[in-house]
Amino acid sequence: MSLIVVGSVAYDGVATPAGKVERMLGGACTYIALSASYFTRVGIVGVVGEDFAQEDLDLLGSRGIGLEGLERVPGKTFFWQGVYSDDMNERETLRTDLNVFAGFNPKLPQGYREAPYLMLGNIQPALQKSVRGQMRNPRLTVGDTMNYWINDYRGELVETLKDWDCLLVNDGEARLLSGEKNLKRAAEKIRAMGPRFLVVKRGEFGAVLFYEGGHVNMPGYLLETLKDPTGAGDCFAGGFIGYLASCGVSAKDATPQQLARAVVYGSEMGSYCCEDFGVDRFRTLTRDAIEARFNEFRAFTAL
Amino acid sequence: MSLIVVGSVAYDGVATPAGKVERMLGGACTYIALSASYFTRVGIVGVVGEDFAQEDLDLLGSRGIGLEGLERVPGKTFFWQGVYSDDMNERETLRTDLNVFAGFNPKLPQGYREAPYLMLGNIQPALQKSVRGQMRNPRLTVGDTMNYWINDYRGELVETLKDWDCLLVNDGEARLLSGEKNLKRAAEKIRAMGPRFLVVKRGEFGAVLFYEGGHVNMPGYLLETLKDPTGAGDCFAGGFIGYLASCGVSAKDATPQQLARAVVYGSEMGSYCCEDFGVDRFRTLTRDAIEARFNEFRAFTAL
Repeated sequence: MSLIVVGSVAYDGVATPAGKVERMLGGACTYIALSASYFTRVGIVGVVGEDFAQEDLDLLGSRGIGLEGLERVPGKTFFWQGVYSDDMNERETLRTDLNVFAGFNPKLPQGYREAPYLMLGNIQPALQKSVRGQMRNPRLTVGDTMNYWINDYRGELVETLKDWDCLLVNDGEARLLSGEKNLKRAAEKIRAMGPRFLVVKRGEFGAVLFYEGGHVNMPGYLLETLKDPTGAGDCFAGGFIGYLASCGVSAKDATPQQLARAVVYGSEMGSYCCEDFGVDRFRTLTRDAIEARFNEFRAFTAL
Repeated sequence: MSLIVVGSVAYDGVATPAGKVERMLGGACTYIALSASYFTRVGIVGVVGEDFAQEDLDLLGSRGIGLEGLERVPGKTFFWQGVYSDDMNERETLRTDLNVFAGFNPKLPQGYREAPYLMLGNIQPALQKSVRGQMRNPRLTVGDTMNYWINDYRGELVETLKDWDCLLVNDGEARLLSGEKNLKRAAEKIRAMGPRFLVVKRGEFGAVLFYEGGHVNMPGYLLETLKDPTGAGDCFAGGFIGYLASCGVSAKDATPQQLARAVVYGSEMGSYCCEDFGVDRFRTLTRDAIEARFNEFRAFTAL
């Protein structure tokens, strides 16, 4: 395995202006792993219940994703249900049943601990810290978080992200974590907390990556079909770290060009994710389509 | 003169989180002309009252802007007053005194009618149409408008923009004019109304330009100092058409690279505008600074 991904594996129910699905495969770990699987060999660490379907295991397996770290325990799989606003930029959570995820205590298979790349999905910072501690010496550790942990677990989060090479957040989370309204100054403060790189995801408007002495600023992809944004941020994370893993870079030697390309592959994977419900787009997406969209990015940002 | 600019010349009172100015030079025509003056020879067409200050004429003159088409009539100059929200993304109009602008009936000096470039600022569509009719045969006509004209003067606006090569609007206006939520489909519908190019300005998130068979999509510039966004959209327009005028292109032969660069120069000029109140940034801005920021755009979008 080249990349280890930790996070939730879930079932989701979503309603968007484009339709409604009662129950479908979801969870941050699932989206990140599927997205990254187009770039590198991925192993996941997560927990599911007895209701987790064989066809969903088969989908992950069909993308070459290692399942040795996916625990199956008595009980039901994490379930989340939400409904999106008309422009799909807002969503309301209708139901969150943690189920077996409430007892999640990630334990990495021995064979995973030497892997060079680690992606920590959005879970409690203490669990992220425990996972990072089980890894021997990853070349690049990327972590995600959210406003809930920033507000209510700030100390634990700040302690945890010290050891990360890259933090992924959105605009509002960057401002909340730094206490600074201006994005450039917010980025300086966050980078001073430990992470060498900060990626600020801006939804349909793309993403900015800050590094020592500079930044990468890429627009989003203009979609013609937008069915379900669930998982888009996680697919960004998967494309981002997956591409960097495919380059074999470490946090210290990543070049601005590699970082820019990683941001674009991240944006792309997020955009593909939105074209169908849940993970459905990944049932047919090909690496050729990913390269074609990369070339579109190159064309519409060419100066 | 290479570029003729038509629109309001005004005094503004603004309050932003960075401060308050009771009365300062403003108006779409003023901002467009100052911005474009860094790229090409500009002549303006507008109207002011007896209260218009010599120092403001001097500022325009110092940038080489032709004032032959600036009428001075009895009465007071257009006055607008507004207050911005905390994030400066919203503003509330407190006062609009049209004054002499209520009787504005633009009449172009003979020497302006042969000019190759025309920028129609946001005024009543019938007046924009009259100005376009007075020009002999411009190589490129760009027009701005706003939700008020789209809602209440739709027929007149649609009739007017038939003759434009490029329309500049924001996201919401593009959706309102086309009746289409998806931006790519909205652009197709608007381009079918006449303009070969559509520019959608997205504030801090940059701008998209749609042309036959493709588009340009550029992020915005990340500002560290944001004092007053008044006039930023007009400065975008000035940088955009000013750069195209400096290339000498016509609507039919503009290349995607020229269009992309025009979008970046537009974004830049909008970003510089926000760094100080009103037009103050243009009292010190140099062409070298503009080139330096262009190189920053090239660096942070490089793939």
